Amino acid sequence: MAIDLDKNYVKAQHFIECLPYVRRWHGKTIVVKYGGNAMINEELKEAVLKDIILMNLIGIRTVLVHGGGPAIEEYLQRLDIKSDFKNGLRVTNEAVMETVSMVLVGKINQNTVSEINRLGGKAVGLSGKDGAMMKCRKKYAKIADGDKVHQVDIGMVGEVESFDNTLINNMLDDDYIPVIAPIGTDGDGGTYNVNADYAACKIAAALGAEKLFLLTDVEGILLDVNDKNSLISSIKASEMPLLIQDHIISKGMIPKVESCIKAIEDGVNGVHIIDGRVPHSILLELFTDSGVGTMVTKE
Amino acid sequence: MAIDLDKNYVKAQHFIECLPYVRRWHGKTIVVKYGGNAMINEELKEAVLKDIILMNLIGIRTVLVHGGGPAIEEYLQRLDIKSDFKNGLRVTNEAVMETVSMVLVGKINQNTVSEINRLGGKAVGLSGKDGAMMKCRKKYAKIADGDKVHQVDIGMVGEVESFDNTLINNMLDDDYIPVIAPIGTDGDGGTYNVNADYAACKIAAALGAEKLFLLTDVEGILLDVNDKNSLISSIKASEMPLLIQDHIISKGMIPKVESCIKAIEDGVNGVHIIDGRVPHSILLELFTDSGVGTMVTKE
Amino acid sequence: MAIDLDKNYVKAQHFIECLPYVRRWHGKTIVVKYGGNAMINEELKEAVLKDIILMNLIGIRTVLVHGGGPAIEEYLQRLDIKSDFKNGLRVTNEAVMETVSMVLVGKINQNTVSEINRLGGKAVGLSGKDGAMMKCRKKYAKIADGDKVHQVDIGMVGEVESFDNTLINNMLDDDYIPVIAPIGTDGDGGTYNVNADYAACKIAAALGAEKLFLLTDVEGILLDVNDKNSLISSIKASEMPLLIQDHIISKGMIPKVESCIKAIEDGVNGVHIIDGRVPHSILLELFTDSGVGTMVTKE
Amino acid sequence: MAIDLDKNYVKAQHFIECLPYVRRWHGKTIVVKYGGNAMINEELKEAVLKDIILMNLIGIRTVLVHGGGPAIEEYLQRLDIKSDFKNGLRVTNEAVMETVSMVLVGKINQNTVSEINRLGGKAVGLSGKDGAMMKCRKKYAKIADGDKVHQVDIGMVGEVESFDNTLINNMLDDDYIPVIAPIGTDGDGGTYNVNADYAACKIAAALGAEKLFLLTDVEGILLDVNDKNSLISSIKASEMPLLIQDHIISKGMIPKVESCIKAIEDGVNGVHIIDGRVPHSILLELFTDSGVGTMVTKE
Amino acid sequence: MAIDLDKNYVKAQHFIECLPYVRRWHGKTIVVKYGGNAMINEELKEAVLKDIILMNLIGIRTVLVHGGGPAIEEYLQRLDIKSDFKNGLRVTNEAVMETVSMVLVGKINQNTVSEINRLGGKAVGLSGKDGAMMKCRKKYAKIADGDKVHQVDIGMVGEVESFDNTLINNMLDDDYIPVIAPIGTDGDGGTYNVNADYAACKIAAALGAEKLFLLTDVEGILLDVNDKNSLISSIKASEMPLLIQDHIISKGMIPKVESCIKAIEDGVNGVHIIDGRVPHSILLELFTDSGVGTMVTKE
Amino acid sequence: MAIDLDKNYVKAQHFIECLPYVRRWHGKTIVVKYGGNAMINEELKEAVLKDIILMNLIGIRTVLVHGGGPAIEEYLQRLDIKSDFKNGLRVTNEAVMETVSMVLVGKINQNTVSEINRLGGKAVGLSGKDGAMMKCRKKYAKIADGDKVHQVDIGMVGEVESFDNTLINNMLDDDYIPVIAPIGTDGDGGTYNVNADYAACKIAAALGAEKLFLLTDVEGILLDVNDKNSLISSIKASEMPLLIQDHIISKGMIPKVESCIKAIEDGVNGVHIIDGRVPHSILLELFTDSGVGTMVTKE
Repeated sequence: MAIDLDKNYVKAQHFIECLPYVRRWHGKTIVVKYGGNAMINEELKEAVLKDIILMNLIGIRTVLVHGGGPAIEEYLQRLDIKSDFKNGLRVTNEAVMETVSMVLVGKINQNTVSEINRLGGKAVGLSGKDGAMMKCRKKYAKIADGDKVHQVDIGMVGEVESFDNTLINNMLDDDYIPVIAPIGTDGDGGTYNVNADYAACKIAAALGAEKLFLLTDVEGILLDVNDKNSLISSIKASEMPLLIQDHIISKGMIPKVESCIKAIEDGVNGVHIIDGRVPHSILLELFTDSGVGTMVTKE
Repeated sequence: MAIDLDKNYVKAQHFIECLPYVRRWHGKTIVVKYGGNAMINEELKEAVLKDIILMNLIGIRTVLVHGGGPAIEEYLQRLDIKSDFKNGLRVTNEAVMETVSMVLVGKINQNTVSEINRLGGKAVGLSGKDGAMMKCRKKYAKIADGDKVHQVDIGMVGEVESFDNTLINNMLDDDYIPVIAPIGTDGDGGTYNVNADYAACKIAAALGAEKLFLLTDVEGILLDVNDKNSLISSIKASEMPLLIQDHIISKGMIPKVESCIKAIEDGVNGVHIIDGRVPHSILLELFTDSGVGTMVTKE
Repeated sequence: MAIDLDKNYVKAQHFIECLPYVRRWHGKTIVVKYGGNAMINEELKEAVLKDIILMNLIGIRTVLVHGGGPAIEEYLQRLDIKSDFKNGLRVTNEAVMETVSMVLVGKINQNTVSEINRLGGKAVGLSGKDGAMMKCRKKYAKIADGDKVHQVDIGMVGEVESFDNTLINNMLDDDYIPVIAPIGTDGDGGTYNVNADYAACKIAAALGAEKLFLLTDVEGILLDVNDKNSLISSIKASEMPLLIQDHIISKGMIPKVESCIKAIEDGVNGVHIIDGRVPHSILLELFTDSGVGTMVTKE
Repeated sequence: MAIDLDKNYVKAQHFIECLPYVRRWHGKTIVVKYGGNAMINEELKEAVLKDIILMNLIGIRTVLVHGGGPAIEEYLQRLDIKSDFKNGLRVTNEAVMETVSMVLVGKINQNTVSEINRLGGKAVGLSGKDGAMMKCRKKYAKIADGDKVHQVDIGMVGEVESFDNTLINNMLDDDYIPVIAPIGTDGDGGTYNVNADYAACKIAAALGAEKLFLLTDVEGILLDVNDKNSLISSIKASEMPLLIQDHIISKGMIPKVESCIKAIEDGVNGVHIIDGRVPHSILLELFTDSGVGTMVTKE
Repeated sequence: MAIDLDKNYVKAQHFIECLPYVRRWHGKTIVVKYGGNAMINEELKEAVLKDIILMNLIGIRTVLVHGGGPAIEEYLQRLDIKSDFKNGLRVTNEAVMETVSMVLVGKINQNTVSEINRLGGKAVGLSGKDGAMMKCRKKYAKIADGDKVHQVDIGMVGEVESFDNTLINNMLDDDYIPVIAPIGTDGDGGTYNVNADYAACKIAAALGAEKLFLLTDVEGILLDVNDKNSLISSIKASEMPLLIQDHIISKGMIPKVESCIKAIEDGVNGVHIIDGRVPHSILLELFTDSGVGTMVTKE
Repeated sequence: MAIDLDKNYVKAQHFIECLPYVRRWHGKTIVVKYGGNAMINEELKEAVLKDIILMNLIGIRTVLVHGGGPAIEEYLQRLDIKSDFKNGLRVTNEAVMETVSMVLVGKINQNTVSEINRLGGKAVGLSGKDGAMMKCRKKYAKIADGDKVHQVDIGMVGEVESFDNTLINNMLDDDYIPVIAPIGTDGDGGTYNVNADYAACKIAAALGAEKLFLLTDVEGILLDVNDKNSLISSIKASEMPLLIQDHIISKGMIPKVESCIKAIEDGVNGVHIIDGRVPHSILLELFTDSGVGTMVTKE
């Protein structure tokens, strides 16, 4: 038992070292975007959800936005639904949209809620269609054709026009963890598939969030994508467009980077692109001095 | 214009005739169960949802519980998932359960929420897993074997143990229309498929509802299933077991009838089995003297 | 019974057609001024009060301001109290004022409250003296004498200086229908008789009302008072002074027209002069496309 | 100035002597019934109303119930309306009732509200018909005929069945002084004239009042009506029926005495019959050791 | 008894004469600074505390700030702790500070709370360190040296930087009388001794107080300190610096005068330097026309 | 940096292991009694206060009750105040009581509040005299004289009669940490010195606390006081009197043990006598499976 006690002393010691951080975040709103490949490993997923529950219990108003990724692809194949890509964006007809909705809302969202509740949290699953809170407009793919750029119709893909924070704030006031699927509405019955990073960014801005965490399956933003030691640990939002221009930022990272810039512009204090494969990477960011990944700040 | 005015006079006159009924229901809670075949016709569906929005706007705390039916069957086939039936209950393995959840929560629930919002209401979609509000235990099929009755495992089919009304009441207080998919949890990560009639009955009881409306695609309870003039327009809950015993009530109606009996026992003032194919059958029940279908009362 | 059901189908159908209107007015404040000759017919009066109760029940914050008219005249005669008129305004000495107060507050107001309660509403009767909410100053008659205009003292006739909306808003928050007699105070024990149209206009402005309905016993504003087909169905407030100047508007209508102009200036969105003799004329205005009478708008 | 200061010292000294009494009554509900002959003298009336305002300001939840008396008689004569008396109760037909309502609600109640507001209080005038708060049933006169007692119909005279305290408590919570005219309703449009003493008693009971003050124009209850030194300064409710039986209590005092007994039975802690002709008799009762009049207690 | 009644009549009469004043102060915040020599006489102290309780009971949000004075001196001597004075300010090392804290918070504050509770009030004792509500910075003595002015370190003497009114307002909302010892914090564990007059001035400003009363043991501000008839009964804040410049104001009065000027600048409506030796001098100021002492006003 | 990251991984890992415990205690009330010798070491004191702040931040309603001990002794000596002991209890005359009050409230309480605020908490210092919340009666020493037991007057030593939880609950609702000195009142100006263990026990009971922690400077309850391996780690309250009877529990521990028994009887779920010399012993109890010290339970 002496050994256990020693271990527990260390544990208590570590716990108390978190005190200044706990005080720092108490009562603040933090939005976590989590999904896609980062969500596949069950063990890591449980670690992330435990972090979120802990945040909620120590008084952080915590919102989880999730994506879909592989499960959508899997079901489209099983249902034999085909869809093209234009400029990296999936052309989303009604059959695709229905599949996306079923997978995101009926499978991933519900599983996530269920997991959080199982682990002792109190989650409620929502989509942006609930309370018509996420209003969208149609988004077009931009295809370069020589000097011109054509707008190409890619179906029910949306960009967020506005997010009504009433419903989410009511739930945060009641101590629930809202879990949000990135599906929006045009307020007239139309449904839109929204990129989860963009959605999280808009939600964070609408809630006046202190932090937005984008969990990925990479280390963060790398100057050289092949060199993990080239991680940018901190960057100003205003410096990021240059990275895109200089092709330092690769394709999949672009929505994340654009979300960062937008979120910072909309008043979110800090955005963190962090490596969801590192266990408890959120806790590391919030409760220790050593963050993991790339922090984007205003100045 | 004179003619329009005349028509409008009649309309206003009819509106004012609803006054005593509006007064009667103001501030009361009413649960509507709607689904399956009754939900297929788009025009009728819109009529039902308009009724529900109107109820909400005139101050009735209105909750919608929906089922699934044909869409579940369709997707099971498309996904090539097979499932047996035991004593009329579908054996629900994990693959079936995932399909049921995707269809109920990701498709039907979201579409219903979207429709209500499009028609001017303010709906929020939930399942019984949200906030872990609908706690279930495993339900077994009962198979008679001579004198004995065997309990047969049919997988993830649940019966409701308890329903926590906190989340729904918060939403009703904020004037939302909660739309609930009948999927439950065992509080330990397990998911259960619940018969929508039974779920609606439990929800109505937990909310202390004044009325439970079960919308069906038949006229109500018929003494002779082949004779529409044999409709029982009013019956006491205590008389209903006899109908089952005497085989007057056919198979599909049994869950409805058992729900009625249970809901009345649990304190719901009145349960109505009404014909969802009749336009505005809910309004007819609530706002005129001529009800349609079968009313089940305590005494 | 089949026939009744058919009639009820029509009724429910009509009810549901009101849905967009119900949604439109829910939570808004509407002030109705009703009185004088328009209030004499018992059947019409009941129709008006039923409209008001219905408005209240479907979530409209409804305030009723009433006048007096014939009953005041009757009691002045029975009590043998004489009073002159100056420029159309009754010279109001203490004896006249006491009679006016007794008839308005003790008879008409109480009868109206009683009727509303009998018909199922929840009304509370008040005068502008309660909570000293309607502060007035003395009003003088203006008598032309050649080029000059003399101010002539006509006793306890008041014009509203300010209206404190606290008491009324408390009652609306508690779902009561406030019924207000147009009698004011100078805050120093003095009592003032106020024209009910002017009072209603000030109350509507103080409450930030969406609509003010002035129920009259004529069709609305007629271009030719002898031709009912000359009804002006819609007019801008800014165009109304011209009607007065051109003597198109007759004497009794002037306070109404001036109230309209003032109310629009003070921020009321729309004022309707409607024919109280038409059954359910308020409902026709609010819940159908065919209004009756004259609507005055800002632009 | 030295002299003024001395006088003010005495004043401040007296004020501070009230401290234990102020503390005693803070937050309690006290109902004052005041009216009839006790209300005639303007100077005394102002003194009573100032007492009531002071009570309100120092945190006593103060309700004023008034009667009518001479003014009703005066108007019945002026309007040439005749009415018989049966066993001391006025036969109240519709014409009488209308006059009573106009005088009580339209004259006395409004004047009292106005006076309180002029003196710096915040009063709201109500009758028992407002919010249908005072529900009555018909009261019959009891005429002895030899051994039998006949019930004789005396028209619209009521006795209070129940009093809904919601409206009054809302107003007390908002720091208003409710001023109540003793007119009731049968909830079906019928109006009833109620004895003000009985009404005050019922209101005090419904509000859980700590004290009920019945202001009269006599010294209190006298053992010998001709000997002012025979004042009963304190008596138990249970001893009072004997006084009636022994004819010690004269006719006009009977409603007061019966009100006392009923109020004590209904939970009011103490009832005081006090001499409204003594200036500030209420303050003397509440804020000094020397009460005036007769105190009725439970034990 | 007749005589008592007469005396009580006078008392009630005096009480009612306070009505306009009670109305005037109801709901306002008043800060009273009381201490030092003015606090020595037990009888006067009880009179002051009774005034404060009465203020609280009649709805004045009343805050008491106290000083220390003789008791601090006494304990420093008993504990044999020496301290120099620089320019009239005590050099406050840790030993002195600990003694000051023990005497102010542990003795005077607790005794005052206890006395108020004994006399029927509801007091809570606090220092500026509670909730870290009174933030201070170090104050230096200014010593003239020819033309130069040196800042001399006098230890733990503070001046108030800011006062967080949350805790006090919570207590006033709950009807407590906060009793505050003038000890502050630098938010980093440091403790500061603050002049009670300055502290009271800052607290009054932070609470948006209507009045600040500084109770002293002199008549007020005298033009000639030897002539009690030279009392300045009213003066504008802007005229006061002249009094200091002309040496009309003596040393001990300077903090009071500077507090007055600062409080008026910070928005307190009126500051009164009053003679705490006069019984009920606060009541005389608040509830009669004859104030005692010097009133400082804005204009 | 890699090493730091590893260390932080371990820290985050430990933090997340606390999740079930955080969930377990969230929203519960816990009273900590801390004082005397356990409070001397500054480093340990800071560790204890950090534990308390952390408890507060993660949603535990945390109350700190402190004692005095050595500092009281020191000041009594410095002030040359003598006091006898009777049966182990200090005879407390007025001079002693004043010193106790000054040291407890003016020194220890204020220092503790200041420390908590410095470390990032939000504390408010109170004694049982504030709001007169801790009502006491005189306690007598019991001196055996042969067969008889004499009650001996030991002055201002009190035992708690009742504790009014209003003020503390208000502060807990506002997220403050109340720090309470164990000094009581008789409600009539009298002051009482109360044993801090007894006070903490009464406060825990009055607040319906889930846990009471008594921090000592020993290991807990030892079967053999000389053998630290004889620690009783868990015991039922009902078994404790036996330990006293058998003289296993030594004198200083008796108040603690009696407090335990009383607190359990009064409904506190568990009482822990823990070793304040072990760093973060509270966290070890609450957030790990390995408690330190002796836990007293009901059954």
